[in-house]
Order: sequence, then C-alpha cells, then structure tokens
Amino acid sequence: MKIGYLGPKNSFTFQAANKLFEENKLVPFASIPLTIEQLENKFIDFAVVPIENSLEGSVRATIDYLFEQSGVTVKEEIILPIQQQLIGINSIKQPQKILSHPQALAQTKQYLKTYYPEVPLEAVNSTTFAAQYIAEHPEENLLAIASEKAAEEYNLNIIASNIQDNATNQTRFWVLSLDKSSQITMNLQEKKISLFVTLPANVPGALHQVLSAFAWRKIDLSKIESRPLKTNLGEYVFYY
Amino acid sequence: MKIGYLGPKNSFTFQAANKLFEENKLVPFASIPLTIEQLENKFIDFAVVPIENSLEGSVRATIDYLFEQSGVTVKEEIILPIQQQLIGINSIKQPQKILSHPQALAQTKQYLKTYYPEVPLEAVNSTTFAAQYIAEHPEENLLAIASEKAAEEYNLNIIASNIQDNATNQTRFWVLSLDKSSQITMNLQEKKISLFVTLPANVPGALHQVLSAFAWRKIDLSKIESRPLKTNLGEYVFYY
Repeated sequence: MKIGYLGPKNSFTFQAANKLFEENKLVPFASIPLTIEQLENKFIDFAVVPIENSLEGSVRATIDYLFEQSGVTVKEEIILPIQQQLIGINSIKQPQKILSHPQALAQTKQYLKTYYPEVPLEAVNSTTFAAQYIAEHPEENLLAIASEKAAEEYNLNIIASNIQDNATNQTRFWVLSLDKSSQITMNLQEKKISLFVTLPANVPGALHQVLSAFAWRKIDLSKIESRPLKTNLGEYVFYY
Repeated sequence: MKIGYLGPKNSFTFQAANKLFEENKLVPFASIPLTIEQLENKFIDFAVVPIENSLEGSVRATIDYLFEQSGVTVKEEIILPIQQQLIGINSIKQPQKILSHPQALAQTKQYLKTYYPEVPLEAVNSTTFAAQYIAEHPEENLLAIASEKAAEEYNLNIIASNIQDNATNQTRFWVLSLDKSSQITMNLQEKKISLFVTLPANVPGALHQVLSAFAWRKIDLSKIESRPLKTNLGEYVFYY
C-alpha cells in the first residue's frame, strides 16, 4: 500500500499522514494537484492533503481540484495542531536572516516583531527546506522557523518553541481514496459530508431555498463558500 | 488629493486606479494591508485594492483586513479585464527562462505548455519587476509575462498578445475611503452592499434564518463566504 502526501518529508501533511500510516508507506509529491492526480492514476491508494487552516481558511487548491473530479471520496479527516519552532545550529542573538515558508512567517509575525525586529526575513519553498539550508550553511549565521520534526531531521536546536501567534493554530487534512468501501482504523467523531452545489439560475432566494433543506432537518452546516466557476465574475459553485 | 494603490507602478491595480484618477495623484504601496493602513492614517484620501478575480476568487488579504476595520467605506467598484502579454527585447525561439508573477504564470499555463513546454518558468514578485529585469539583462535571453503597460514602460516588444487561458479573466477592485459623503465621478451599475455577519451560536439553521431576511425581500445575494474568526477551527464570520 502506498500513501501519497503533499511533501516534502517532515512537512505538516507528512505528520498528519504519519498519524494514520507507517512512514515507509508514505510517498511525497510536490503539489496538491499532483498528489491527487497520482491517486486517480492508481499509483497510490490514498492521498493526504490539507483542506483548511484555522487562520488562513480553506485550501483553495484542494477544493478547486476536487470540484473537477468525480471519483474521489473523502475517507477520513485528521486535525493537526500547527506548532512553529525557532531553530538553529546555536542560539544567535543577531542572525543575518531568518528563513521559512511564507505561511510560517505569517503565523509567527508578532513573535518576530517583538524579538527580532531588525532581522530580515526570507521566504523559501518549505519549512523543511529552511531547516536543511541552515544546517548545510553554518557559516551564514542563519535561523529558521520549522517544525520539531524538521529540527530533529537536521540535528538542529530549538531556540524558542511554539512561537506561533495563535495558540489554537490547527490544520484539517483529508485522506482521499478512489475506493468507496475501503476502511481505515480511525473514526470520525461526527459524521460529516461536503457538497458542491451549482444553481440553475442566479435568482434572489435561490441559495436560501437550498439551505432550507438542511435547516428543516436541523442539519448543522459548518461552513459555506462561493468558489468561482471560472466562467464570468459573479458565477459560482457553492461549497458546503 | 492622494490615491494609494497596490503597487508597483503599472500593476493591474495601478491600471484600475488610473481609470478614475490622474496618474500624478497615484502613490504605490507594497501590500494590501499597508495601502489600507495609509488610508486610516489619513496619508491618502482613497485606497484602491483588488477584491476578487474571476479565476482565483476573493482576495483574502483585503477581506480579512477590512473585517478588522470599522471606519472604511467602499466608494466605488472597478472591473478590469486582465490581459497577459508575452514580452521581450526580441522574439526568442528558445529563451533561457520565462519570468512572471505566480498568478500570471498560472493564468497562462495552457499557452506556456503548448508553445514553451521545455522552458523553465521563474516566479518573481510582480509582473512589472519581470519586465524591468528582462529589459535590464539583455544578455540573459529571457522573456516575461506582463501587461501592455509594463511592455511600454520598459520599451519591450509584445511577442504574443492576450495569452491568458481564459478570455473572461477579470478582476474587481474597490475604491476605499474614510469619508462617507465624498463623491467620485463613476457610478455603479447596480447598488451593492457587502456585509460581515457573525452568529451568536453555531446552531443548525442559523445561517438559513439570516438569509431569510434577504430572500423574503427578493434581494439578490451575489456570493457568500465563511472566513475563519482566527479563534478555533469551525468558527467563522460570514461575508456576503
């Protein structure tokens, strides 16, 4: 059995996938569409991709790609706390630069402003890459923001831990499969379903009528989103 | 009078702002939050920022920042067709690289795949920067994807015009102001309003009840979106 995930190794998606599957079955891919494509090509049995972050909202690459597919089902949901660590070879008071992925830099903005107001920040492709780069360039006097896993992998020290500005920073991941009957060990706490709805005409009250079907049955709607149909401005598919 | 916009000069936001305001009144800023901040500090009289693209959907930086502000009002809406041009010093059959902003590269994916399948693509900070860079480095054999305006500014030739994959690629921009009474010359075709709604409790049917108020009055709802409240996963503000 092979499980594809949004890489690189030790990414947060890797950590989510590793909660359900053994490490030796995990195969990294460079992007969300690529990961799901490999599932459709039956090169992998499951695909693990992020679907929502508590600060950033829905992961559009995942939603938009799934809207165009018909055969893929969501098997499980994994919720992972996202904890960012300031890491380095040694604790440096005045690093030349601090490297990380743009999202990790955004999630630790307050911390960096307070403790490293003068230090330039450099955006790189992944937090794992940031950790690897500073480990391989000890002469450059750099720090990185990355996960504990990445610090371990490259033998780096954690200089300050859990520096994300919001203590409840979490990401939801989906485990996708083509096989509707296959079972995974974990159970969802609550039964959930995700729907894409397109309306025949853009008339006042049309969305209200759709929501009536849920309200009458006291079905809780956790979120709703208009995603562009990619035709004209103002034409949407509704994603619940 | 000063009008701030999401720069740099000749960006698509510049072109939108230039439809309403003279060029010598326009002041570029490096990010959406910075542009709106300057309005709040009364350094500028109007701020022009993107709010939605027909392919990508809402511009989250704009929505999330405005949710946290109370004094800013939307004065006007500008819709601009987004047309991407392949530009260079000369027409090169086998360029070393093609440079552009990631969104412009995404919007011309099919074209690039068909005509330049082997050429590496490089993401840079803005389409304007891409144009400037290739103009200043004639020895490097590069092409860029940018607007017609950017080609003019740096005396570059248009090698292929309107290469975006979707003919109806459009972006909506908002003109923001602190002054509720000030008038601008353009008129909206239709009266529109944008609302942020938070619900007292997450109970089944709560959103349906809110939408009833609009449906009963036959008020057309153009879009709806859940944006995270940045507290916990599953807690949202609804943006209409």
